[in-house]
Parts: sequence; structure tokens; C-alpha cells
Amino acid sequence: MSLLLDNQFIELPPDKAINTKLFLDAVSHIPSFFDCLGPNVFSVIKSDINGNIMKIKGVYLKDPAKYVSLQDIVEAEREAHAAEWPKVGATLALMWLKRGLRFIQILLQSLADGERDENNPNLIRVNVTKAYEQALKKYHGWIVQKIFHVALLAAPYKSNFLKALSKGEEVKEEDCLINVRQFLVNYTATVDAIYEMYTNLNAELDYTV
Amino acid sequence: MSLLLDNQFIELPPDKAINTKLFLDAVSHIPSFFDCLGPNVFSVIKSDINGNIMKIKGVYLKDPAKYVSLQDIVEAEREAHAAEWPKVGATLALMWLKRGLRFIQILLQSLADGERDENNPNLIRVNVTKAYEQALKKYHGWIVQKIFHVALLAAPYKSNFLKALSKGEEVKEEDCLINVRQFLVNYTATVDAIYEMYTNLNAELDYTV
Ligand SMILES: CCCCCCCCCCCCC/C=C/[C@@H](O)[C@H](CO[C@@H]1O[C@H](CO)[C@H](O)[C@H](OS(=O)(=O)O)[C@H]1O)NC(=O)CCCCCCCCCCC
Ligand SMILES: CCCCCCCCCCCCC/C=C/[C@@H](O)[C@H](CO[C@@H]1O[C@H](CO)[C@H](O)[C@H](OS(=O)(=O)O)[C@H]1O)NC(=O)CCCCCCCCCCC
Repeated sequence: MSLLLDNQFIELPPDKAINTKLFLDAVSHIPSFFDCLGPNVFSVIKSDINGNIMKIKGVYLKDPAKYVSLQDIVEAEREAHAAEWPKVGATLALMWLKRGLRFIQILLQSLADGERDENNPNLIRVNVTKAYEQALKKYHGWIVQKIFHVALLAAPYKSNFLKALSKGEEVKEEDCLINVRQFLVNYTATVDAIYEMYTNLNAELDYTV
Repeated sequence: MSLLLDNQFIELPPDKAINTKLFLDAVSHIPSFFDCLGPNVFSVIKSDINGNIMKIKGVYLKDPAKYVSLQDIVEAEREAHAAEWPKVGATLALMWLKRGLRFIQILLQSLADGERDENNPNLIRVNVTKAYEQALKKYHGWIVQKIFHVALLAAPYKSNFLKALSKGEEVKEEDCLINVRQFLVNYTATVDAIYEMYTNLNAELDYTV
């Protein structure tokens, strides 16, 4: 279970400000999550998410003292790039990153809740599809939606997926899910806080790719 | 027509050694070729090809005097990474890059030769499919092959494609194709020379992604 537990998200402070450095540390382990999905198809998603993280990190490192929280970055970019904002810089990268994070959250939550296709209990397609429909579908044009449906065929078996989450250790499904649930506490709170911030700052866009 | 003509490949010397710097200069304009394909779907391919170029450039810049030709790089990596070679470094990046370059070559050649679907003369699907089958298909597993068939639906109209090749200038199809033919002379020779080098050095792999 180390992949998840090694990289716990921290509990949010009462004002829900997300510390940029700690957030970047935590999400930087996410791209390797996609390696456990097996086929190379997912390397494309891995590098998209990785690109988001690098973009945010690039901005942060220019002035760590100024960009203590993620909101500091988004607000500074709103000042600096009034014309293009929010389709610019780390604001855009975080807009997309949060959708990938939400996708992962819903997928894990659905597994933790025991949602499954009774006819194919070892497939995770219902869980992946739920995550896709809630987190990403509306931002994808019909071509990318069709590509998603093809890629879905490459989704790993549940047993392999849980094993990979546990870094290859054989753990009982129920033990793994206990750890997933515990991981989800701060993770979900962090993702929620980013969504809230985008709503509050009017930084959300709904164009499709 | 400037996208192509601005970035002519140079004529190869008699020994067919490909000058690394001139090659990198010429191919560095290729990724923007994919912008003219319109939908964001192709940004994925653009960044794959761009990654290949950056990988090769990274090696080259470590010692430009040592890596004058592409073959110098591939041979040096064969020495340095005997165990993993050729699935390593710039050797791997160039292995894949040459396939993308071949894809483009066959696509342009097919257009220049006037190959078309008589029922849909303004579509380029027959040309794209020919290029795919000859350059890439055998290196793709069935999932990626299926994704290709979906992505094909996003291929631009011939008129838009030729216009984009001409950087948005309205040119007559025949004028554009004259320029394409002229571009293809040194371009094809360069791509052929890279393939020959991979054969001669036994550097080619045929695993699928
Ligand atoms: C030769 C064969 C031909 C093949 C042609 C194939 C083309 C295939 C294209 C498939 C799409 C792959 C997924 C990537 C989609 C991306 O296009 C989107 C938007 O991506 C964003 O775009 C922005 C500009 O609009 C900025 O560039 C962002 O970058 S910025 O940092 O620069 O600001 C960038 O992330 N990201 C997304 O939709 C996010 C995707 C998250 C995925 C979450 C997991 C899903 C798991 C599914 C499991 C079944
Ligand atoms: C949320 C939605 C879910 C979606 C999930 C979607 C996933 C979509 C995946 C689609 C595949 C996109 C194309 C990319 C394919 C790439 O996987 C391959 C191999 O890529 C190589 O792999 C190596 C390791 O094996 C190294 O990493 C190379 O990198 S290295 O530099 O590090 O060594 C890398 O280029 N390149 C290729 O096949 C080359 C492709 C060239 C394309 C030429 C033009 C085609 C135009 C088609 C027009 C119709």
C-alpha cells in the first residue's frame, strides 16, 4: 500500500489554504500511479498530468515566498495576465490537474464503496466510467470521448490494480481498501478545496478538447 | 508554403552522414505541423515527437564536437549502454522519431502523387491510412490501432490541410503540391538514410506499444 500511504496529503488548515510546496510534493507521486495501469496507452495521460505539475512547479520556484499557497499563484496570474486569464500558466495547468485528481478520487472512492459490475466483479470499468463521466467527459469533444471508450478496454483487472496500488505486495482486497479510504480523507478535502477556489475566483472554464 | 520551404532539409553528403545540428534544426519545425491538423487530439502526437527531438538534442548538446553526425550518437550509446541498447536514450528517441518522419513522408508523397478517394476527393483519409499502415501500424498494439481509427475521423479536409501547410495563404492545390514534391527530395533521402543506419547498426526493434 506504500504508493498511497507514502504520499498522504496533509490535513487542510481551517482557512483551506493549500500549501503549494506540500501539494506539489504530494501530487508528484501521482503520475507513477498510471504506470500500474499497465499498457503504454496510459503513458499519454501520465505525461499530460506530469506536464501540469511541472507547469505549476515552474511558477512556484520563481518565487516560493510569494507563492506559499496555490491561491497566491492563481491570484498573481489574474493580476499579471488579465487578458488571457484563466486560460494561462499555472491557473490553466491546475484547472486540468484538478480534473485528473477528481477522476482518481472518484475512481478510488467507487472502489472503496464496493461499487461493481456483479457479472464481472474483477473489472473496474464501471468505476472508471463513473469517474470519467463525473470528472472529465464534459470537457472532452466526441473524438476524445470515443478514444476514452477504446482506452477503457485497456483498463487493468481490479486485482491487478489493487496489487499495483500496494506496490506489488499481495494484500487482501479489504486491507487495501481500508488504506484507500484513509488516503481519501485528506486527498478529497484537498481536491474539493481546489474546486471551491476555482468557483470563488471565477477561474473555471468549460471549453472542450 | 513557408512551413515546408522555410525548413528544407539539406542534401545529404555522399557518405550519407546526417549532420546532427542541421537535422535537429530541420525537424524542430515538424511539431508545429501537427497544429495545422486542428483538433487538440493531435497535441498528443505533437508532444510525443517533440519529446523525441528534445531527447536527441539533450544528448547532442552534451558534446556537440563528439556528436557531429546522428550515427556518432547512436554508436556512442551502443558503447555506453551495451546492456539496454538500442532501447535507450537518443537511439530509442530517433528510432521512434524516424517512424513519425516516415509517416509524414508517405502522407505527403501520397498527396503529391494525387492518390485519393474519388468519392471523397477532399478527404485525406486514404493518404493518412496508407502512411499509418506503412510507417506505424506494426508498432502499435490493437488498442492504439483502434485509437488511430478514431483519431482518423478528426483528420482535416485536404483543402484545409494544404492551406495550413502554406501557413494559411490561399494557394492553388497544384502550386502547393509542387512545393511539397520539392520538399520531399532531401527529406525522403534523410529519412531513408536514418532507416539504413538502423538496419546497418542492427539498432531496429519491433516491439509494440
Ligand atoms: C498514431 C495513433 C493516433 C492517435 C492519436 C491519439 C490521440 C489521443 C488523444 C487522447 C487524449 C489523451 C488525454 C489528454 C487530454 C488532454 O488534451 C486534456 C487537456 O489537456 C490540457 O490542455 C490544456 C490546453 O487546453 C493545457 O495544454 C494543459 O496543460 S498545461 O499544463 O500546459 O496547462 C493540458 O493538461 N487533458 C485531460 O483531459 C486530462 C486527462 C486526465 C486523465 C485522467 C485519467 C483517465 C484514465 C482513463 C482510463 C481508461
Ligand atoms: C481520458 C481519455 C483517455 C484516453 C487515453 C488515450 C490514450 C491515447 C494513446 C494514443 C497514442 C498516441 C500516440 C503516441 C504513441 C507512443 O506511445 C508511441 C511510442 O512512443 C515512444 O515510446 C518509447 C518507449 O517505448 C519512448 O518513450 C519514446 O520516447 S523517447 O523520446 O523518450 O525515446 C516514445 O516516442 N509513439 C508513436 O507511435 C509515434 C507516433 C507518431 C505519430 C505520427 C502521426 C500520426 C497521425 C495520425 C493522424 C490521424
